This record gives sequence, C-alpha cells and structure tokens, in this order.
Amino acid sequence: MGTPFDAATTAHRDPEVAGRYTAALSDDWSIGAAVNGGLLLALLGTTLRTALEEAGGTHPDPVSISATYLSAAAEGPAMLDTDVVRIGRSVSTGTVRLSQPGPDGDVERLRATATYADLGSAEAEDPRRSFDTTQRPAAPPPEECIGSEHAPPEFLAVARMLGEFDLRLTPESARWREGDPSRRGELTGWFRLPGGREPDPMVLLLVLDCLPPVTFDLGLPGWAPTLSLTAHVRRRPAPGWLLVTHRTRLMAHGLFEEDAEVWDGQGRLVAQSRQLAMLPQRRPRG
Amino acid sequence: MGTPFDAATTAHRDPEVAGRYTAALSDDWSIGAAVNGGLLLALLGTTLRTALEEAGGTHPDPVSISATYLSAAAEGPAMLDTDVVRIGRSVSTGTVRLSQPGPDGDVERLRATATYADLGSAEAEDPRRSFDTTQRPAAPPPEECIGSEHAPPEFLAVARMLGEFDLRLTPESARWREGDPSRRGELTGWFRLPGGREPDPMVLLLVLDCLPPVTFDLGLPGWAPTLSLTAHVRRRPAPGWLLVTHRTRLMAHGLFEEDAEVWDGQGRLVAQSRQLAMLPQRRPRG
Repeated sequence: MGTPFDAATTAHRDPEVAGRYTAALSDDWSIGAAVNGGLLLALLGTTLRTALEEAGGTHPDPVSISATYLSAAAEGPAMLDTDVVRIGRSVSTGTVRLSQPGPDGDVERLRATATYADLGSAEAEDPRRSFDTTQRPAAPPPEECIGSEHAPPEFLAVARMLGEFDLRLTPESARWREGDPSRRGELTGWFRLPGGREPDPMVLLLVLDCLPPVTFDLGLPGWAPTLSLTAHVRRRPAPGWLLVTHRTRLMAHGLFEEDAEVWDGQGRLVAQSRQLAMLPQRRPRG
Repeated sequence: MGTPFDAATTAHRDPEVAGRYTAALSDDWSIGAAVNGGLLLALLGTTLRTALEEAGGTHPDPVSISATYLSAAAEGPAMLDTDVVRIGRSVSTGTVRLSQPGPDGDVERLRATATYADLGSAEAEDPRRSFDTTQRPAAPPPEECIGSEHAPPEFLAVARMLGEFDLRLTPESARWREGDPSRRGELTGWFRLPGGREPDPMVLLLVLDCLPPVTFDLGLPGWAPTLSLTAHVRRRPAPGWLLVTHRTRLMAHGLFEEDAEVWDGQGRLVAQSRQLAMLPQRRPRG
C-alpha cells in the first residue's frame, strides 16, 4: 500500500540493533514545528505490531495503546526501539520508544505500551456476551460541513498535515474560526483519507488525535501539548467516512482531559481515546 | 501514617539495586488468589512518587498513570523497579515495574508509566482557564446503601479485601446479589477507609478499581482480568465519603471498557479512569 499514510507509518528494521526500527518523519504531517501526535501513534502502532508478529504473535489489532509524550517530534530520521513483553494466546503486549538524534545525543519523543488482540474473532456475535449502548451523535452530512480549506489562513500556514486528509468540521465545531466558539467543550468532524484508502485500525489511531485541541471550542486556541493518551480500538472499521468527536468536561490546574470517539461508515463506535493535555500557555499581555 | 492502606502502599528502598524498592503484598487486599489491581496501582503510585522526589522532582500528584497488567500478583514479596524519565518544571515522568519471585525466576505482574504534577497550584482558580460540566450522579446516601457484609457468602469468602474499607453499593448496583442485575452496565457505591483515614490522590487510585467488575451488572459475574488501566487524578479530594461510579457502554470481541469516576465529599469530580478488561471466561456447560 503506497499511500502517503502508509509511507508515513512504515518503519524499517535496523539490522544493526536488536528490536530497532527506523523511520523518516515527514514535514507533511506536521502542525507548527511538531509532527502530529496521532500520526506518531499510528507509526508506533504499526511498528510494534510488526515486532510482535516477528516474535510469533498472532494479534494484529491494537486494542489498547497508552503513549506518554515527552518532547515534540520534528521532521527527520527517527529510531523506534521495541520490546516484546508477552506473546500470549488471547493477547500480545509490547513497548516501543521513539527517539530522534539531537546535538547532544538521542532525544526521546514518546513511548508507548500496547496490547494487541484479534478483532476478527466471532465472539462479537455472541449475544449473551455483547452489550452496546453507544449511539453515534447527530451531525450534518460531510457536504454540509466545513473543510480544512476554510480554516483561517494563519492556521493553514502552520498546519501542513491538513493537506493529507479530508477533514470537515461541523458548523458548530468551526465557530472558533470566527472568534465565536460554542464553548460546549466539543468538536465534531468527518474524516477520510484521499485516494480511496479505506480506514483500518491504524488509521483510527491517527483519527483519534488529528483534530484541533478541544480547547479551541473554549476560547483558548493554541498548542495544547499532550501529556499522555490511551487509545482503544474496539472494532475494525467499515469503509467510508469516519465521524470523530472530541469532548472535555473538566479543565482545572492547567490540565484538561480530551475524550475522542470514532464512528465508522455503519454508525458503529470503532475507537475511543482519552488524553490528558496541558492548556495553551498564557500569552504575555503586551 | 500507620493505617493498613498506608502500610500496604509503602515500599522500601533496596540499597543493593539502583532504582529498586521492595514491598510485601498482603493477602488482606486480595480477591481470590490475586491482590486487587487498585491497591497495586496505589502502591506503584506512591513508589514512583518517592523515586521522582529522590531525583529532585517537586510534583506529588499522579495526574496520569497508565498501567498494563501482565499476570496476577499474589501475597508475598515484590520488587518495584523505577526509572526516572524526566524531571520537568511543570511535570515529572517515570516508569515502574512490579515483579515477584517465581520458581523459574522473577515474574513481572504489571508496569506503569506515570506523569506527576502539582494539584495544589492556584491555576484552578483562574476562571478564564477553568471549565467544568461534570455533575455528580444522584445516589441514595450511604446509610441507605448496601454494605459489603451483605454480599453473598461465597463472594465474601474470596474477597478478603472487603474487610479493609467501607464500601456500600446503591440498591440498583447490588441487584446482581439476587441474580437480577439491572443490566444498565453501571455500578455505583460509596467508599471510605476506616479509622478516619481521609482520602488523598493515592487513595483515589485504589478507589478507581476496587468495585466488582461492571460485568456483574450485565449478568456475567466472575473475574474479569484488566489488560490496561489509565487513571487521571484531577483534584485533591476533600474529606469524607467518596462516590465511585463504574460504567461500560460496549462489550464486543470478548473485551469491554470500564470507565470509573470518583466524586469527593464536596461533590467534585476528583479522579477518572478507563480500563480495558477481558470478559469472564465461559463456563463449560455441565
């Protein structure tokens, strides 16, 4: 699969170092000077899946991945050091750390521990062991939503990654563009990769963290660095548009949680995540 | 502080091994043959806090801790190996792994990565940077709820940890006792430590994972092993009873998420967590 997403989330085994893979981070997926956290999560997810499979694991789907973000990743080479923790019957577990060379040695950008399972199993069909009270939120269809090309020019100038996918915010979620955010603490949008690249579990890891921070809807635009993010992929997504929602309920002590949910073309919840992030820095009054 | 909770969550530096602490896991906190996961999370939280402080950190509160559970911990000695990842200005980060000696060498039970901050800061008071749409759910007062002493005898016989705290489920949440669970996917209860030990952030880590699995409310009693759990402590709790809620919305492919929230004596949300757990094993038909 030669799409830009697949190229950006493919790492290559380093024959010199056990467990190490290398990748090139592209500026195409950056926002400001930093590569997008969702893209990095997808890169970690694919790399660790490969490492677990090479160790004999048979579980392709990242049902739980917890990442801790330590410093902003930038365009350029990156090393991914994997560690297989357990190859089990039902699940396999491993860790991966991404670092980049710096002037004073390698600098760690983020690390993650993840558990993989097989979401193609038939257990989903057993009604005695199934339960689902989730409901896709109402949203206008993509053609009534607002594409990235309508973002403010100063935002587009630094959000190069918006050229890599079709993202359309609902009108309510785009009110921050006019300086009149809804202040509900919610952002909702439609997502699709170009070129007919249909979603899979690794795409979901990107989608969970590719919208603007939910603080844009609370009158606090600006970069809100993620401290930690845990994503759960619950089902393999059906083809078509994905609907993604971001929500926060509590901002306090300079921190807020951001809950994301992704719904597939059949209206099913396919992924959920929660991150803890820091509020944008106060601007000095001038 | 010499309370049983404090004793069970205190580890001692091993002078022989850098970064290592040792602790004795007590059967008092077990459920079946396993030590409760919430108690282990609190033990990891206190130990890593100590390690970060000894490295010069100034951040006492575990605002985000992500644990991956690898095997069941049992009564007996345990080693906690800590690794300081970063001591920063706003936050400090580290990892900790708990293992126990086994017949064929040490066996890892769980590992966690956690970020600590200072929740005593005044930023919570800045209204331009605060947002709170959380609301404590309605629940009958503790005196109208059902204490652990009313649990089924076969449950009490294996849940020794219930002797360590006062836990009172709401009548709706206790219907599984009669074989008539509410099937809402929710459990709610009041929690208090004995002897006037008031809650703090480390107690919250216990409280987030000390109720029966939410699957009890879905007609699936039995042990539901946690794969991963991420907890966020958002505020230091006020004294008094804590209200804790567990909820699931989706059970599929043998996995379910369990979202927990803890509310303090002033009715404020003080902690939240999400875990991914495996459904209880199917019982062979006999």
